[in-house]
Amino acid sequence: MPDFTDHLKPRYNGAATLQAERNGSAICVDELSQHLLSRDCFLERQEKIVEVLSQEKLFNKSQQLGLSRVDRYHLGLARAKAIQRIARRQGWDHDDCMMAEYLNDEMSPYHLHMTMFVTTIREQASQQQKQHWMPRILNYDIIGCYAQGELSHGSNVRGLETVAKWDPVNNEFEIHSPYLTASKWWNGSLGRTATHAIVVAQLLVPKQQHGKPSDSLEAGYENHGPQTFIVPIREQRTHQPLQGIVVGDIGPKYGYASMDNGYMLFDHFRVPKSALLTRYAEVSDETGALVRRGHPAVVYGSLTFVRGQIIMHARLVLARAVTVAVRYCAVRRQFRYRDSTAASGACTELQVLDYPTGRIRILPLLATTFALHYTGEYMDDLYSRSREAIESGDFGPLAELHSASSGLKSLSTTLVADGIETCRRAMRGHGFGGGSGLVGLNAEYLSKPTVEGDNWMITQQVVAYLIKKMTAVVQSPTASPQDPTDELFQSFLKRRLHRKPQSVFDPHGHLDDQAIVDVFKWRTADLSYRAYQARLVEKNLWTRLMIQLHNLSRAYSEQILVTNFHTALHSTAGSLSSPTPDVLRTCFRLFALYTLSNSSSSFLLTDSVLRSTLTMLDDSILELMTELRPHAVKLVDSWAIPDFLLNSALGRYHGKVYEELFNMAHRKNPLNKVTFNPDWRSEEIVLGSGDQGRHILAKL
Amino acid sequence: MPDFTDHLKPRYNGAATLQAERNGSAICVDELSQHLLSRDCFLERQEKIVEVLSQEKLFNKSQQLGLSRVDRYHLGLARAKAIQRIARRQGWDHDDCMMAEYLNDEMSPYHLHMTMFVTTIREQASQQQKQHWMPRILNYDIIGCYAQGELSHGSNVRGLETVAKWDPVNNEFEIHSPYLTASKWWNGSLGRTATHAIVVAQLLVPKQQHGKPSDSLEAGYENHGPQTFIVPIREQRTHQPLQGIVVGDIGPKYGYASMDNGYMLFDHFRVPKSALLTRYAEVSDETGALVRRGHPAVVYGSLTFVRGQIIMHARLVLARAVTVAVRYCAVRRQFRYRDSTAASGACTELQVLDYPTGRIRILPLLATTFALHYTGEYMDDLYSRSREAIESGDFGPLAELHSASSGLKSLSTTLVADGIETCRRAMRGHGFGGGSGLVGLNAEYLSKPTVEGDNWMITQQVVAYLIKKMTAVVQSPTASPQDPTDELFQSFLKRRLHRKPQSVFDPHGHLDDQAIVDVFKWRTADLSYRAYQARLVEKNLWTRLMIQLHNLSRAYSEQILVTNFHTALHSTAGSLSSPTPDVLRTCFRLFALYTLSNSSSSFLLTDSVLRSTLTMLDDSILELMTELRPHAVKLVDSWAIPDFLLNSALGRYHGKVYEELFNMAHRKNPLNKVTFNPDWRSEEIVLGSGDQGRHILAKL
Repeated sequence: MPDFTDHLKPRYNGAATLQAERNGSAICVDELSQHLLSRDCFLERQEKIVEVLSQEKLFNKSQQLGLSRVDRYHLGLARAKAIQRIARRQGWDHDDCMMAEYLNDEMSPYHLHMTMFVTTIREQASQQQKQHWMPRILNYDIIGCYAQGELSHGSNVRGLETVAKWDPVNNEFEIHSPYLTASKWWNGSLGRTATHAIVVAQLLVPKQQHGKPSDSLEAGYENHGPQTFIVPIREQRTHQPLQGIVVGDIGPKYGYASMDNGYMLFDHFRVPKSALLTRYAEVSDETGALVRRGHPAVVYGSLTFVRGQIIMHARLVLARAVTVAVRYCAVRRQFRYRDSTAASGACTELQVLDYPTGRIRILPLLATTFALHYTGEYMDDLYSRSREAIESGDFGPLAELHSASSGLKSLSTTLVADGIETCRRAMRGHGFGGGSGLVGLNAEYLSKPTVEGDNWMITQQVVAYLIKKMTAVVQSPTASPQDPTDELFQSFLKRRLHRKPQSVFDPHGHLDDQAIVDVFKWRTADLSYRAYQARLVEKNLWTRLMIQLHNLSRAYSEQILVTNFHTALHSTAGSLSSPTPDVLRTCFRLFALYTLSNSSSSFLLTDSVLRSTLTMLDDSILELMTELRPHAVKLVDSWAIPDFLLNSALGRYHGKVYEELFNMAHRKNPLNKVTFNPDWRSEEIVLGSGDQGRHILAKL
Repeated sequence: MPDFTDHLKPRYNGAATLQAERNGSAICVDELSQHLLSRDCFLERQEKIVEVLSQEKLFNKSQQLGLSRVDRYHLGLARAKAIQRIARRQGWDHDDCMMAEYLNDEMSPYHLHMTMFVTTIREQASQQQKQHWMPRILNYDIIGCYAQGELSHGSNVRGLETVAKWDPVNNEFEIHSPYLTASKWWNGSLGRTATHAIVVAQLLVPKQQHGKPSDSLEAGYENHGPQTFIVPIREQRTHQPLQGIVVGDIGPKYGYASMDNGYMLFDHFRVPKSALLTRYAEVSDETGALVRRGHPAVVYGSLTFVRGQIIMHARLVLARAVTVAVRYCAVRRQFRYRDSTAASGACTELQVLDYPTGRIRILPLLATTFALHYTGEYMDDLYSRSREAIESGDFGPLAELHSASSGLKSLSTTLVADGIETCRRAMRGHGFGGGSGLVGLNAEYLSKPTVEGDNWMITQQVVAYLIKKMTAVVQSPTASPQDPTDELFQSFLKRRLHRKPQSVFDPHGHLDDQAIVDVFKWRTADLSYRAYQARLVEKNLWTRLMIQLHNLSRAYSEQILVTNFHTALHSTAGSLSSPTPDVLRTCFRLFALYTLSNSSSSFLLTDSVLRSTLTMLDDSILELMTELRPHAVKLVDSWAIPDFLLNSALGRYHGKVYEELFNMAHRKNPLNKVTFNPDWRSEEIVLGSGDQGRHILAKL
């Protein structure tokens, strides 16, 4: 409906502001985008899929934030199905479909089918099993999920309560949930979607081949630990749970509204012998005993790969939050300079991005996107190089890969989850609104610090590895180093007793990049040595050391980020056209100094840096931010996040922030189509409905 | 529907675990609850209101997380109206109604009516205006809101774009929105509920009494800055916007789903002269000029009071998150001791609260609830003591009050917003679920760091005050001190040149509480002096100092929390029965050392503490946590958060965590009542509906 607001303009022109920002930097955005995103044809694929999805009404995102949970799942399923139909029409491959899910920006109810379900069959099923299942899976004739975690056991897989008893008489397994807490829980796609599930259960095999086993739970049985089964869970025609199964959706969560995270219990549910995935273990037809074969470490290889991918994903998520924050804080103006002598006037209001208090929250995170990028690429390359060795049975490279990927998963998801919120707060009032585009992103991403290995728990794997490495180096300080960690520890042991804290500034007060890398390395080595001392020399309880060890993992991972970023400046990034290499160097320094500043006492107490370095940090960070500031908008442009994905009034490429916000509120908000009765004397809620409040009571 | 899960029990008995925790501590919970919550009859009032609300189906919270935004507002309005009816039935007063809103735990669409709207009339209307409006307000015949902030101006009130032109010929004001960005924005209760609004607009008065003013916006007019008007915005019978007004709800946000935060624009909208609230300023009938009278500083008094209340609220919000985390992490067991030699077995799994990595995240926050409490009480008392002076026109005490309340608002809301998320992550997987009870709390509370004075912005008011105080003390170092800040600064100046860093441990390695307080004070004084030097001696630009000044505000506020907590140990808290005073002392030490540890380099670089103190902190914090651990459950019990408010399966008093989680999922989740069609070949979404996806498309 037309009204007088149709012709109003905002007081400041956001589009012109962003254009001026873009004119003010000589960075070649296309070149930098290619540099960052050409791997696996990401950029071209993104463009191709956005083109298609943005034309489909079903993928319009303007209403989804306001939908009920039931409708959110409904929409999620409709979109998942539509993507399959579009994919066949357009000839999309698996990567295209994953890109469509990424751009659609909500967890697909088919997600687990496309990932953990198919991967588990591929890696753990026998050839014969694969022949049976793979065509059905790839054709989506069945929809699968992965049911491992339970109500009271997640990370501790050995503690799972679901059992699968081998019944040699009937040649069947009986899957059973002896406790309420044995309920499978959180498993994606299980609640309403899946027809089949990978079920992880404790395999119980009778101790004697002859004689009926006892009825009590484990008496007479030997527990072979968690094994993997493929189990039909719903009737094909009616989609109702099979007899002996209770299954459903666990209810609303922080995020994942479109995903049916589920629960499932079994009541003496029987499956044939072929349900057990038998690439690595099988119940012998002759003896009834469990026969293991091969080495499932290759499975850890793919887990390590998944953790490496988390870093690549993390950088894009952070880039998205930073894109919104940089663009909005460039357009947004607020107050005049406190020291300004100019007369009051509109044009003297300052861009939020020009306040140090705005910059210090956003620009280090902008630098972090690049830090994550170069380490993501490093891990990707390392995995590719090691893959052949691993597949041929040489698991040597896995230890370093696994350790690095665990520490980096923990650090990068923490940085990004916290970074989204920091960006949001830096945008103040409008950051809290739906127009920020961060409501969904934040809610979904908050899961990351606690899933795929809780961020506090998995750091223990990192430090166990570092302590082992340090022990080996202490014992054989001159053995030929196997990897960069060996080199670092050897060098540390040689110099330990003569260490003098370093400056990161040269005698002229300029930053010394190599010195920056060195202090991060020294801190890591020193903290590793302390951990080795505390655990192996002083024999402290592991539990007592846990906090200290968590900090070591963080230091180690920060050092990896800093080192890889520094290396990239001299390799891939160095050949970009001017001024991009210099700007990236500024990002490197800002990231490193900001990180140093946040943990300064750890650098000080390990004698890594001079106290005088710390007193110079604040000014140095201010200067780096001043250098970076003119390039901020073009740097976020280079991450090439499409408006379709951003879904943000504050962050849109064109900069028409206020027009978009107003449009969302005034023209697209369904709440404004209803007129309410605000008078407390009446039980009627919608004016004129006379419903006496029954509508809402029925939903409670 | 009965099924085999009805008789299943969880493997561990959560209720027995919490009972054992309660048996293991001698704290008298009732006594401590009274100590914490007897002010303004909080405990009795809470009990009275819970009793009533928990019996009303309309206030059942089990479904609201899954409702659509339109239904959330619908529910919010239904509840707001019901509270008014119940209040009249039960004889509730204003405080009872506010308690009902607190326990209902969502922003009421009447919230602004009950707070800013009525307060503004009370404080800024003339006697005559009050006589007209107050009966209508108190009777809820009209519903009001407070429309100050705009689309592009929030904190900067002087930059507001809405204008009110005085028309002396017709004796009217013409309220107008010259730009799109003049749109009122974010104003609660405005979107769908309010009939009237307080509108803040730039008052333009004709420069010449005679001669027609120019048509251009401000030409011929003098701008008297923002003034306050009461304006009818909707027609009484139809609840439609009045001619010349466009108004609506701004759409979904992070939180506040039940609240209709709104937008509003005016097209030459005319209101009578009586619309201007005239206690402090009036347009003269004779001259047409603005006549100001009285001192509106009393208004700042009530703003200061509001900020003080934010601390009291913050402690309860944090107590709620900590209650959930402590109870759940006591019930939850995970893994066995790494160093344990016992054979594998269920009972050896450790309570999450017994891992240092669990404790370090939760127990310092538990200590923080008490730190916030004693400073909240201190501010409350200080305000009460100063109120008489302020109302009689002596605004002297306001400066210190205003400064302290600003810094503390910033610090406490940051601590609590971050603390909720820390608790959530400490609960790992289930923390992300709806059963945590933190989804809504988190979404709502995330607004706090940026509203009522953005947490970064308002710290400037604090440091401007501190610099002014330091300047005065430098100039007159022996003048009679007016307040504790003067005393601190005088003492600092005397000792500054001979300072030696302190330990917080006595020669026997025991903590010295007074020394703890002293180092917090020294750091504040030292940073204040540096700020004074940088700004007044070195004449740095304010902008350049902003980050440094933000850190000073935090240090100053942390020192207030530590000092008040320490004082309380010797006054009110000291008389509690044993072991409560000792446990509170442990909380004090843990809060202080944890805070010190988080900013350790700031303490070091100001020569507040010895380097050796820092190396002892980690062990000392571990020991304090071990001391506190047995009392954790009873300490959270003392905050007396009712299950009705917690609304948390993980945090319920009885400890039946898994039964509650399962009940929510299996018996209360409406998504499980729908059977879907997961086959991508069909466009049908609900199985058997044959709707071909039209249901969801219609909502997009």
